[in-house]
Amino acid sequence: MPVTLDTSAPDFETAFTTLLNAKREDSPDVDATVAKIIADVRSRGDAAVIDLTAKFDRITLTPDTLRITAQEIADAEAQVSPEDAQALHLAAERIRAYHERQLPEDAEWTDEAGATLGWRWTAISAAGLYVPGGLASYPSSVLMNAIPAKVAGVERLAMVVPTPDGILNPLVLLAAKISGVDEIYRIGGAQAVAALAYGTDTIAPVDKITGPGNAFVAAAKRRVFGKVGIDMIAGPSEILVIADADNDPDWIALDLLSQAEHDESAQSILITTDADFGKAVGRAVIKRLETLERRAIAGPSWRDFGAIITVPDLATAAALSNRIAPEHLELCVAEPDALSAQITHAGAIFLGQWTPEAIGDYIGGPNHVLPTARSARFSSGLSVLDFMKRTTLARMTPEALRAIGPSAERLATSESLQAHGLSVTARLDKLNR
Amino acid sequence: MPVTLDTSAPDFETAFTTLLNAKREDSPDVDATVAKIIADVRSRGDAAVIDLTAKFDRITLTPDTLRITAQEIADAEAQVSPEDAQALHLAAERIRAYHERQLPEDAEWTDEAGATLGWRWTAISAAGLYVPGGLASYPSSVLMNAIPAKVAGVERLAMVVPTPDGILNPLVLLAAKISGVDEIYRIGGAQAVAALAYGTDTIAPVDKITGPGNAFVAAAKRRVFGKVGIDMIAGPSEILVIADADNDPDWIALDLLSQAEHDESAQSILITTDADFGKAVGRAVIKRLETLERRAIAGPSWRDFGAIITVPDLATAAALSNRIAPEHLELCVAEPDALSAQITHAGAIFLGQWTPEAIGDYIGGPNHVLPTARSARFSSGLSVLDFMKRTTLARMTPEALRAIGPSAERLATSESLQAHGLSVTARLDKLNR
Repeated sequence: MPVTLDTSAPDFETAFTTLLNAKREDSPDVDATVAKIIADVRSRGDAAVIDLTAKFDRITLTPDTLRITAQEIADAEAQVSPEDAQALHLAAERIRAYHERQLPEDAEWTDEAGATLGWRWTAISAAGLYVPGGLASYPSSVLMNAIPAKVAGVERLAMVVPTPDGILNPLVLLAAKISGVDEIYRIGGAQAVAALAYGTDTIAPVDKITGPGNAFVAAAKRRVFGKVGIDMIAGPSEILVIADADNDPDWIALDLLSQAEHDESAQSILITTDADFGKAVGRAVIKRLETLERRAIAGPSWRDFGAIITVPDLATAAALSNRIAPEHLELCVAEPDALSAQITHAGAIFLGQWTPEAIGDYIGGPNHVLPTARSARFSSGLSVLDFMKRTTLARMTPEALRAIGPSAERLATSESLQAHGLSVTARLDKLNR
Repeated sequence: MPVTLDTSAPDFETAFTTLLNAKREDSPDVDATVAKIIADVRSRGDAAVIDLTAKFDRITLTPDTLRITAQEIADAEAQVSPEDAQALHLAAERIRAYHERQLPEDAEWTDEAGATLGWRWTAISAAGLYVPGGLASYPSSVLMNAIPAKVAGVERLAMVVPTPDGILNPLVLLAAKISGVDEIYRIGGAQAVAALAYGTDTIAPVDKITGPGNAFVAAAKRRVFGKVGIDMIAGPSEILVIADADNDPDWIALDLLSQAEHDESAQSILITTDADFGKAVGRAVIKRLETLERRAIAGPSWRDFGAIITVPDLATAAALSNRIAPEHLELCVAEPDALSAQITHAGAIFLGQWTPEAIGDYIGGPNHVLPTARSARFSSGLSVLDFMKRTTLARMTPEALRAIGPSAERLATSESLQAHGLSVTARLDKLNR
């Protein structure tokens, strides 16, 4: 049974802190294995990647067959139903439209000292996208990672996806094609991350790697960080629903279950102003679990990490939500905008009862790669900015240098950095001050 | 002697690649020590911090004296000369003005499907700033880290700075005061990072930690990443100067030395279109090194990692620069804007011969915390955005859900995520489609 809490109970604070700090994931320590795999790929390149793929994915590749061909992608596309293809296209279009609005602006201005200052944004040249194989091979993840990269202007987007026993996922390949992925390699695991980071004869290195993966992939991303950029290391998914009594308990139950079905470590929390409504949602979850296809996953998630919290008012709900800093936050209340204004930490907010979180996973437009494990306190979901970087610009005139240079000399001296100061002094001397 | 390269030489590509891949820093493996320190601070809190500070900084503290008092800060301020104070104030004002322009805008719009979409930026609630002690205790670093945090709207900014043997740096404390730092603790090393990340009885935990530090600090930041956000792990400083013959060799020599004097591992590279000018700069560096206060640092840096590269034209210079992806890039050419437009990867660009890089370290306005070790390929200097995070917003109406919901159902089914689909289906059923 999930935890049931009430802020009016004397032990609430203790119980809530326990809920906040519950460790939901035991990451196996695979770092030593991953270090060996990376070293192997760095020294033997393609040969190492091919050997490791034979071992883990049970397929025999050559340098010529590492890459999935245009013909294979066309064949995959032909296997996708027109309805599925249309849904993918609509999703891609909406995700692209949302992310195009994130393109940042350059700036340049001249200040009162005569200094021209500003910045300029440029795209990362080459990015790598990791896509898991097997059960967690989601076409929607391909769209969510690849489209922001292409909107940013990434010239070369290389995707890796393991194909255990040689089985390709047609929807994943179609999503890659729709998103504008430039190269796809049928490899996975730490070896794929190493190949993207360091390059092999067949796979040119990239500058940044994004995308979800298992413990090996996460450990490999941590290890290559610095050599290349990486996105966040994602943890298990979470949802927090704040709902008043004026909701259908079954809708809220399904919203909670749509996180719980991802992973036994996923967490679904309901905060409600009405204890009876909370109980009704609890019953609806149990009822839905009876027939849910993934009840073997969603059941344990709800049992071990689910929670129903009763609060006296929405202000208390917002305060608790800010302590949780949820990845996904649904506001199923009469005035969601007013409640949203009180939220300071959340990855994504879904406003009103007509906005189930699943809309955001697929088709809404915002990105579904979001900060987990309370990291919405300090980080954001994936965006176009993750595939760009900013170069700052400064240009002094002789007059500007005369105006502000002496302060630079002064500070350089105070930090005992003489050459810093002299580089200004030499120029000011030429101007005879 | 620094390397001298010419793109017209047959072995240029090999020599340039060697230069690019030269390992400039041996990070000692302090990870096991750091893991123990963090575990100690997590279990014993203040007591562990106090013991470790006694051991490493040779000062005896109590929970009551961990924090530097307002009186101590006022005393420090009284020790700073009016000229130094004025320089710090001018720098702070210019840095603040630059960073205020980085404040991002929220967005909200309604699309043709009737979905209201957007995002909202909020500040991180609490940030920690690490400031090194001893030689590398730079007031300018305090300004560059603290001001963006305060411009972003960080409510609580806690600074840590070790004070070996109890010695305070008055300029560092004044810089903290000018920047609006809220709390200062006289602790450093991995123990300070652990205290900021996990909190103790005296020091409340923060959400993100920024600022430079030694190998112990860097290892501690890597370890607490996830629990809190961190900024980049900075490597040794670099400068690339692209200069035509129409420059004073001594100015360019000083610009190169202003990086070299930071660290024996710093790297200074000149790319020039005129081989004779390159030689003149080489001679000027040697001459300046004779009298430079920090010649024991700058000399080895220039000898081991310096380079002078001759190119036939500025387009070639830009292409090489983009492969280097320098932290600092000076364009000492007749038309710096035209050359700047060809630069795709650089942390900061300094345009024209009147803009020595040192201006950017102190007083220009842009941040001096910049991506090192070729990471300008995928990352940016510190900015206001590093102290904020973005929450995405989505709101469907019944009509919007009717328009796009069926595609979400379709994609959920294709990914075998039944509850995701049902959360949409239940709502659409209510609308009778």
